[in-house]
Amino acid sequence: MPKELKHNIFYAQSGGVTPVINATARGIYDEFKKNRKSFGKLLIGKNGIAGALNEEIIDIEKENEKEIAKLIHTPGGAFGSCRIKLKDPKKDQQEFVKILEVFKKYNIGYFLYNGGGDSQDTTSKLSKFFKKNKIDIQCIGIPKTIDNDLPGTYACPGFGTVAKYIATSTLEASLDVSSMSKSSTKVFILEVMGRHAGWLAAASGVVKGKNNNSPQIILFPERKFDKKNFLRRTKESVNNDGFCVIVVSEGIKNKRGDFISSSSTKDSFGHAHLGGVAPVLANMVSGELGFKVHWAVADYLQRASRHIGSEADVQQAYDVGKQAIRFLISGISDVMVTVIKRKKNGCWSTGKIALEKVANREKKLPENFIGKDGFSITKACSKYIQSLIQGESYPPYVNGVPDYSKLKLKTIKKLK
Amino acid sequence: MPKELKHNIFYAQSGGVTPVINATARGIYDEFKKNRKSFGKLLIGKNGIAGALNEEIIDIEKENEKEIAKLIHTPGGAFGSCRIKLKDPKKDQQEFVKILEVFKKYNIGYFLYNGGGDSQDTTSKLSKFFKKNKIDIQCIGIPKTIDNDLPGTYACPGFGTVAKYIATSTLEASLDVSSMSKSSTKVFILEVMGRHAGWLAAASGVVKGKNNNSPQIILFPERKFDKKNFLRRTKESVNNDGFCVIVVSEGIKNKRGDFISSSSTKDSFGHAHLGGVAPVLANMVSGELGFKVHWAVADYLQRASRHIGSEADVQQAYDVGKQAIRFLISGISDVMVTVIKRKKNGCWSTGKIALEKVANREKKLPENFIGKDGFSITKACSKYIQSLIQGESYPPYVNGVPDYSKLKLKTIKKLK
Repeated sequence: MPKELKHNIFYAQSGGVTPVINATARGIYDEFKKNRKSFGKLLIGKNGIAGALNEEIIDIEKENEKEIAKLIHTPGGAFGSCRIKLKDPKKDQQEFVKILEVFKKYNIGYFLYNGGGDSQDTTSKLSKFFKKNKIDIQCIGIPKTIDNDLPGTYACPGFGTVAKYIATSTLEASLDVSSMSKSSTKVFILEVMGRHAGWLAAASGVVKGKNNNSPQIILFPERKFDKKNFLRRTKESVNNDGFCVIVVSEGIKNKRGDFISSSSTKDSFGHAHLGGVAPVLANMVSGELGFKVHWAVADYLQRASRHIGSEADVQQAYDVGKQAIRFLISGISDVMVTVIKRKKNGCWSTGKIALEKVANREKKLPENFIGKDGFSITKACSKYIQSLIQGESYPPYVNGVPDYSKLKLKTIKKLK
Repeated sequence: MPKELKHNIFYAQSGGVTPVINATARGIYDEFKKNRKSFGKLLIGKNGIAGALNEEIIDIEKENEKEIAKLIHTPGGAFGSCRIKLKDPKKDQQEFVKILEVFKKYNIGYFLYNGGGDSQDTTSKLSKFFKKNKIDIQCIGIPKTIDNDLPGTYACPGFGTVAKYIATSTLEASLDVSSMSKSSTKVFILEVMGRHAGWLAAASGVVKGKNNNSPQIILFPERKFDKKNFLRRTKESVNNDGFCVIVVSEGIKNKRGDFISSSSTKDSFGHAHLGGVAPVLANMVSGELGFKVHWAVADYLQRASRHIGSEADVQQAYDVGKQAIRFLISGISDVMVTVIKRKKNGCWSTGKIALEKVANREKKLPENFIGKDGFSITKACSKYIQSLIQGESYPPYVNGVPDYSKLKLKTIKKLK
């Protein structure tokens, strides 16, 4: 049921950013403008929920229209993101009380939070806290993660573009190592993101058979790393194809459950901060098989790769943003927007799922998406990924580099 | 003076490949077809000069025209490359004798070798050997190297595209770390290629000031690495800007002249095979300053990055290929094609330089291209790099990934 009008919206971006999270912000903005009379202001938290905790709030209508328009093709989180996990309200309510106080002060009637599993947890907890305190604030989660690991949705905006980047990079690097392999480099290893789920590593599999047999090996976190089997397969590939391209997920573990990567510090969510499995494998291949190896770690280059945007992905990110505003208008709350399927007109149909069902959960690669050999993807997986990497959405360029949005990010004066 | 007609041409690709070396092959092919009556066949060595040593030779006219056309937008070395340094003919003539024997057998009157400094050395040595043996084979070197370190030419085909990739990636990653910096990652380190010359690291400097102050630090191999100064600058950047983006050339050394990178094996040219300076710096920054750090090693991803081709670079690669054929027709020999400047019609004017003057030489960044602080580039450098990254030359896509050339590479029957 539509609620009392003229309350303000509070939107924020949370967790690791993506190449298309700003396209979601643009979708929210466009739909907000279309329904301008239904709402007060569209306020945006600077640096995610920290913007509420610190009262650092941006009024989007104070920004330049041209720069807002560029959000559709700008990577990163234009309003700043955060890695803040709210404390358990049963143990410490301080943050919740502060956020509620700020929301009341700024007449917030709608809360839109754009993030992955951890961020949906924040939205879910806040929603419950508001209810408990009988405060009518509609809470909507909006999906975003390059990891593609949120349950209840066909896909997560951000994944398609990074998948396109990884597939393309794997194909390109395979042509390079193929050229060099006769007298020089025989093995190329590409490390991609994906802590617990192998979606991004899987994306490389769509190019297999296109120009050559690469990637000959994909290492998924869903499979225990078996050194002997890995080295045998590497050697076989070099023997058969002349070279071997390996795509490895940062989060692979051995049989004892330890990460293969050399370093493991923790981020503020308590997750191990990984990176560096490629050089470990490179030394292994070089030392035990004697092949010359090259290796790359894509890290933020993949996550910010808006220059090779997937048109399907950009559209999806935009559509979930629009849908969030429509849910607010329909009086819907306590759900995350989901993606269902692509329509004939190119837009994505959307749905919803209870926040509780997505918070802190991870959707791994289904068993029928991993090949029997454990080093490849199935046709079903390839078909799925292809649906998300269709079309090229390029940013405009000025003087040879992309022309990305530059916002002022001036915060509004703090209210007393 | 034009020579006796109907001799065959022998072309080969050598050394580390580039995203546009195949555009040079396409330029050669197009100009060859335009002057079809002046020549016998256009024969191509499989895997560089190894194709002559092993008599593995491709007749390009046996390939599919459509796939040849795609060479303009295909990365890697489509005919295979090599890292083979011919022995000093004063000590061991065996390889030279073999090549001459093969060239005679296959009626080769023209030798086109496409590579960097080491490859120009091969061309130069062969040219002298042919002269000494009174064999009339015209020898032309064609420049190619992403390192941009060949002397006597305005630029080297391949550099512009990789420079565009690095500049764009630096800008994109800066937007990512900027979003995360408030509560998470504060430093991002990108390792790029460049053994002795900092051209590729310098390319990142063109985006400084565009959306933010990144890259705050560029580490050039032309400057000794000073840990104390580096850490001070990193800390200052985080204090001033909230985050710090560092672009580092793989080849940086300390005051004692040792590589900072952790591993150093050697390739067949005797060069140290580098990679892995980014994680060394990441541990340094994390350990000594306590900042959360992310790092990437672009490796082959940069060198094969044809998906973000610079139009200026692709045109340049194509034009040097065409010019090589024109030199053959004009009777010119013992020179490398050089690039002079871009013409109003978009094509590059070309010239020539004696092979002896380019073989085994490296052009480092000029002093007036590096900022006084040693961590930045000057306006002159920025202007130069911008001239090479202008325009976007995208490959066509099929099912979400680039449609790259796939040649049969069938070798012709060995003659007796």
